[in-house]
Amino acid sequence: MSKDTSINIGLCGFGTVGQGVWKHLEQNRAELAARLGAPLRIAAIAVRDPQRKRAVKLPPKLLREDPLEIATAPDIPIVCELMGGTDLAHRVTLAALRAGKIVVSANKALICEHGAEIFATARKHGGHFFFEASVAGGIPIIKALREGLVANRFPQIYGILNGTCNYILTQMEERDAPYAEILSEAKAMGYAEADESLDVGGWDAAHKAAVLAWLAHGLWVPPSRMIVEGIERVTPADFKNAATLGYSIKLLAIITRDFASNEVSVKVHPALLPDHDVIASVNGVYNAISVTGDVVGTTLYIGKGAGQDATASAVISDIADAVALLRSGKCVHLNSEVAPLPAEQASAGKSGEGSVAASAVTLAPLERIHGRYYLRLTVRDEPGVLAHIASIMAQHAVSIASVLQTPSEDPEMASLVLTTHDANERAMRDTLHELSRLKVVNGAPLLLRICEFNT
Amino acid sequence: MSKDTSINIGLCGFGTVGQGVWKHLEQNRAELAARLGAPLRIAAIAVRDPQRKRAVKLPPKLLREDPLEIATAPDIPIVCELMGGTDLAHRVTLAALRAGKIVVSANKALICEHGAEIFATARKHGGHFFFEASVAGGIPIIKALREGLVANRFPQIYGILNGTCNYILTQMEERDAPYAEILSEAKAMGYAEADESLDVGGWDAAHKAAVLAWLAHGLWVPPSRMIVEGIERVTPADFKNAATLGYSIKLLAIITRDFASNEVSVKVHPALLPDHDVIASVNGVYNAISVTGDVVGTTLYIGKGAGQDATASAVISDIADAVALLRSGKCVHLNSEVAPLPAEQASAGKSGEGSVAASAVTLAPLERIHGRYYLRLTVRDEPGVLAHIASIMAQHAVSIASVLQTPSEDPEMASLVLTTHDANERAMRDTLHELSRLKVVNGAPLLLRICEFNT
Repeated sequence: MSKDTSINIGLCGFGTVGQGVWKHLEQNRAELAARLGAPLRIAAIAVRDPQRKRAVKLPPKLLREDPLEIATAPDIPIVCELMGGTDLAHRVTLAALRAGKIVVSANKALICEHGAEIFATARKHGGHFFFEASVAGGIPIIKALREGLVANRFPQIYGILNGTCNYILTQMEERDAPYAEILSEAKAMGYAEADESLDVGGWDAAHKAAVLAWLAHGLWVPPSRMIVEGIERVTPADFKNAATLGYSIKLLAIITRDFASNEVSVKVHPALLPDHDVIASVNGVYNAISVTGDVVGTTLYIGKGAGQDATASAVISDIADAVALLRSGKCVHLNSEVAPLPAEQASAGKSGEGSVAASAVTLAPLERIHGRYYLRLTVRDEPGVLAHIASIMAQHAVSIASVLQTPSEDPEMASLVLTTHDANERAMRDTLHELSRLKVVNGAPLLLRICEFNT
Repeated sequence: MSKDTSINIGLCGFGTVGQGVWKHLEQNRAELAARLGAPLRIAAIAVRDPQRKRAVKLPPKLLREDPLEIATAPDIPIVCELMGGTDLAHRVTLAALRAGKIVVSANKALICEHGAEIFATARKHGGHFFFEASVAGGIPIIKALREGLVANRFPQIYGILNGTCNYILTQMEERDAPYAEILSEAKAMGYAEADESLDVGGWDAAHKAAVLAWLAHGLWVPPSRMIVEGIERVTPADFKNAATLGYSIKLLAIITRDFASNEVSVKVHPALLPDHDVIASVNGVYNAISVTGDVVGTTLYIGKGAGQDATASAVISDIADAVALLRSGKCVHLNSEVAPLPAEQASAGKSGEGSVAASAVTLAPLERIHGRYYLRLTVRDEPGVLAHIASIMAQHAVSIASVLQTPSEDPEMASLVLTTHDANERAMRDTLHELSRLKVVNGAPLLLRICEFNT
């Protein structure tokens, strides 16, 4: 490809992110051409309804109704899949990769569901799949993990990966307001989707955690194999209790690898984070990721996790990498080759020794996932209740660290907040199951995890 | 180059960083080979004294006395310049680049002094110069600026770039201890060099700021054209005064670009940073960099800024990029081509429109660098002094925001702390010059800058 030829880009999808990419490619056109050594041209845009009025005025000749047309067009080497969903997006992605193209995607659900197939297809046909925008918006965390920190193995990665949840939790904490009230405000302001369940249930963060876990450890962990708990049951009282104990509450994704047992665990749940942890002070729609590498120590990344502009910044950085790749002819680019192999590929022995280590990685069983816990129960306010609960916990070898009893709205009830010493997930599940069946316990107990990271 | 061939690396210098690179390349040998698709081999190491006993036992056949031998050896495509200094390091770097090699460097002083020549030599001979380790140790900030955030222009970059100063300031603040005491402790613990002046005078941070300013704005700003002030005159009393006003004190590097006037300013100085700024809580030997992009908004990066392991992590990430470049044959790699051109190159018009913007960038004059100031003076404790000082400030259009008077050790003296509203550097310099000549003012006034960033 000659140095003076424009490079054609196809956009599949022209919603919030697509329009952001268009806008910023237009605005910084000259600067980007200088930085990349070649001008970029958006050659085609697939939209669901070409007749629809849009804030951005598009030349009609650019519009296509079928994104597959862009995926297979011989003159478009870079295809941005910005439609979302896992059906048509899946077909478009595979078609473009089979044509040896470079696909740029912000679609973490697609990667999570079809990642292994997507990467295998790319390898087979010489295509490439870039996905910086899929995790933590404008923070270049994918590039940091696979390139900037390539010298490292990663015992611990944790952080805030969902801005909607962080916004809701921050508002609840600052305004002492209940979840439902803040949620409906967030919907009205466009910070939460009409169907909020993917965000508040922790599933969006789980998709992103799956991508990070794969990058760091070469293992595809579907959300069904993770511990995933949402923020729906956190109350203003929990924030007060947490504050009394010196903690804030954040929805965290936590990816841990024990290099002795070679076990990985991936969890997404609301967590009590001590006030001195920098991530405890990351508020609103911001994301934050703490990465501990065995060489570099801990590095921390903070930025806006979503939104048109932050996501467009990430998509454009992938386009820039794609341009470098195209201009190089046959560049073996870090983005496509350097990452650890997925575990299921590793046994094929593609790259010798390294893959042996990757194939040996397994998911940690619940018995070996452990930590401290915060447990809130509504109980009958009568003698012997605490003794009863404590004896059940002791039977499961769960040791109590602190007890906080506060009045309940119902004068016959009390709110009991217990924190534990180190215990494992299996023991806590069993404990919780037994406690929730007690007649003196009203409703389901709330379990939160206390996370004190050594960083 | 065949996929199964080891890639030879030469280390010039085997001090702290060189030994770290050796150690981690050895420890993660198999994993790195798998990630990079090729095993790495350290083929030669230049040391000043081959007879010297070392903690690491090196095969004698690897040792060279002359680093230029490694720079020109035809079988070593990647040369790591880890000697430091700007004389021999300069010759080694140029020799390797003239041979079309890839040079990996942690040497910010070298880049700062000879950057334009180094990059021109690389371009001319097809060599490449990578320098991730030169700024902020293990934080992949170079890669973030030129690749991850390539879609952005950068109105503001600021942060803590010198871990030694941050350690000293943190200890002074936490222990209410004087500068000299903490400095000698830091020297004893190896956190400060025997000659501390490069660090505490702000020059090390200025070198790093020059590298970042060049990356972000394509302009080489030598430290002599920056505002550079050190931490030597900060006292425990200043921390107390700052705390009273709601601030912490950090040595910051600040790179600002006004896109309307196209002016850049680069400053390194102790700054009063409000407690709510996340960087105010970054303590000890950590570095932190806040990058505001016009597309992505503000992203923040925190990690260890120096030390054997963090620096080795960065050097190895550059080696990984170098390997990808070598394996690609003729890859036009982002690290070498995407960066904005230095201003003096831009007028040659290498890449059209983009370079026009770069060539128009100039350094902001002192009149257009502005902010709020903190001024501490020791004055005679007598009537009319404050009125006199205030009238001098008013003559220079510097408006006082707050006044804090505290007793001095000398009963005839008082310590006067003033903060100003927005004023410019020229006016403050003139004010300071005049105030320091007053008979009622004892010793040189201390000027600190108050930095409240909109992030």
